[in-house]
Amino acid sequence: MPQSVLERAQRELLDWNGSGASVMEQSHRGKRFIEMAAQAEADLRTLLAIPADYAVLFLQGGATQQFAQIPMNLAGEGGSADYVDSGHWSAKAISEAAPYVRVNVAASGRADDYRRLPSRDSWQLDPQAAYVHYTPNETIHGVEFREIPDVGAVPLVADMSSNILSGPLDVSRFGLIYAGAQKNIGPSGLLVMIIRRDLLQRATRPMARIFRLAEHAAHDSMLNTPNTWGWYLAGLTFQWLLAQGGLAAMGQRNHAKAALLYEAIDGSGGYYRNPVDPSARSRMNVPFTLHDGALDAMFVRESETAGLLALKGHKALGGMRASLYNAVPLEAVLALTEFMQDFSRRHG
Amino acid sequence: MPQSVLERAQRELLDWNGSGASVMEQSHRGKRFIEMAAQAEADLRTLLAIPADYAVLFLQGGATQQFAQIPMNLAGEGGSADYVDSGHWSAKAISEAAPYVRVNVAASGRADDYRRLPSRDSWQLDPQAAYVHYTPNETIHGVEFREIPDVGAVPLVADMSSNILSGPLDVSRFGLIYAGAQKNIGPSGLLVMIIRRDLLQRATRPMARIFRLAEHAAHDSMLNTPNTWGWYLAGLTFQWLLAQGGLAAMGQRNHAKAALLYEAIDGSGGYYRNPVDPSARSRMNVPFTLHDGALDAMFVRESETAGLLALKGHKALGGMRASLYNAVPLEAVLALTEFMQDFSRRHG
Repeated sequence: MPQSVLERAQRELLDWNGSGASVMEQSHRGKRFIEMAAQAEADLRTLLAIPADYAVLFLQGGATQQFAQIPMNLAGEGGSADYVDSGHWSAKAISEAAPYVRVNVAASGRADDYRRLPSRDSWQLDPQAAYVHYTPNETIHGVEFREIPDVGAVPLVADMSSNILSGPLDVSRFGLIYAGAQKNIGPSGLLVMIIRRDLLQRATRPMARIFRLAEHAAHDSMLNTPNTWGWYLAGLTFQWLLAQGGLAAMGQRNHAKAALLYEAIDGSGGYYRNPVDPSARSRMNVPFTLHDGALDAMFVRESETAGLLALKGHKALGGMRASLYNAVPLEAVLALTEFMQDFSRRHG
Repeated sequence: MPQSVLERAQRELLDWNGSGASVMEQSHRGKRFIEMAAQAEADLRTLLAIPADYAVLFLQGGATQQFAQIPMNLAGEGGSADYVDSGHWSAKAISEAAPYVRVNVAASGRADDYRRLPSRDSWQLDPQAAYVHYTPNETIHGVEFREIPDVGAVPLVADMSSNILSGPLDVSRFGLIYAGAQKNIGPSGLLVMIIRRDLLQRATRPMARIFRLAEHAAHDSMLNTPNTWGWYLAGLTFQWLLAQGGLAAMGQRNHAKAALLYEAIDGSGGYYRNPVDPSARSRMNVPFTLHDGALDAMFVRESETAGLLALKGHKALGGMRASLYNAVPLEAVLALTEFMQDFSRRHG
């Protein structure tokens, strides 16, 4: 999270908004909290220019719960949905959806070890599908779709946990966008969803109210006690993003950060390697390996000592991974690339 | 939350545990976080003397989600469960369970406007029920069970959101205890569950892994990214409770706090009234009315100006409600009773 957001949260922790108490101790039904929550939604709507026919929800349970809740709500019993398998997280979305919907894997990068994205013209879409699900950015495999795929009249559903708010986005191209907050929005335990309102009416199967997206929308995400702290920090982050110049400015900054790091990798003469096809490289998550895996542990240790980003790769893939989320300043990426050059000289 | 817990969270917000970053920015798979999480569980086990054959889970979605998830996990398709209806929250538990289990309302206080609890010998229990569900403390109606009901061999399931950790408890009498954190544990967005391990094996119907309690237990509540901030604050609260002398000491203190307030109400000559049968009065939530409802708004306004507890009653019931959770010191209850006496003199 941005340093200035954390500093403000620290200042306000014992006395928020003149209430004499912490934001965590406010009733979510109180005037102060409701105003804050509404402002957070308004700021997110401004940032993403969200059209009026979309609802914005602040939920719990993370993206993983939505892997199940989305088919429960968007597909009728016996219905089917198209999924694009582009890495670890889309594969999870598929396996969690399977109890609720007939999954058609319309395309997969698995045969390529997820190093490239299946091109749009290879997707086997079903015009009768309840929706098309894809993962615009794969956190672990470090692949990212540059363009929003055209899927015709079928609603496009996107898990944007790791790249939401990283640059401008045309929300009107989507039926549903969802994102766990813990990458680009705020703390864990909060999920943000942007859903075209007509899709809220699709849920037909029996289920508890708490799983019905329409109920959450009808109650302004206060059907049950929300994650008040997470919502508050998300609001502060939205304000910070607006103050930074909005998503156009963030997009430029993120582009520059990623370019710096990929250049350092590609210019290392093979000392560092990123396995991803250049056309599919993520701007948020950059996995890379050292030419000699025996140096991995030393690289992690020395980089930690140098106060750099957490760099150890995900256990599913090994190697290193740099995550360049919005809160990471350009200076931190510069420090990383300088460390990488220095490390390669010292352990050449 | 206790003042000292909030002050510590404030101090550590930017640099937790020597990490140079906030606890919210730690990987939940990192060594520091895992150690903290394990310590929080160990401290809760100490506080409640939780037997080894019970798992402790830190989940998301609040008690409301568990209203659905518990029948999904504990009852087979077509199975039935017994529910005791003692107020607003048990009624909610019943309606959210209905899509997943045949609900037998074994007893209800509805005919008495929930002012007393149905006595155990009036409960119509089914020995074939998957479980018996009850709500030991009703936040809105202010009724609380003094004794743990004997339900034989059928697992007893309790929503303790509003009275967990308020005093000593014999966990071995329960099959499953669950509690939203936002009353006596920490911030909203976290749910604590204590479940006898054999019950984890009951889930037979098709569902996503994210809804399976056994999966959460097998992954130490890190099947997906947990609410890291909530878990951390819960851990600090457990430490605070241990330092206060544990649950025996908390029980005495809570007893004294409640006695003070009920005495002020009962001794007001009818100026204030609590509608609940004395044998069922809650130690945590004390609803009361003024002899003249036209004074309500003034009472709320003046008490707020005096810096007292949030006193406005829940919209479902009106009137006033004082919540005497663990973090409320005796002094705050004294200040409230003095204010009440003063108010009744001035507006007699």
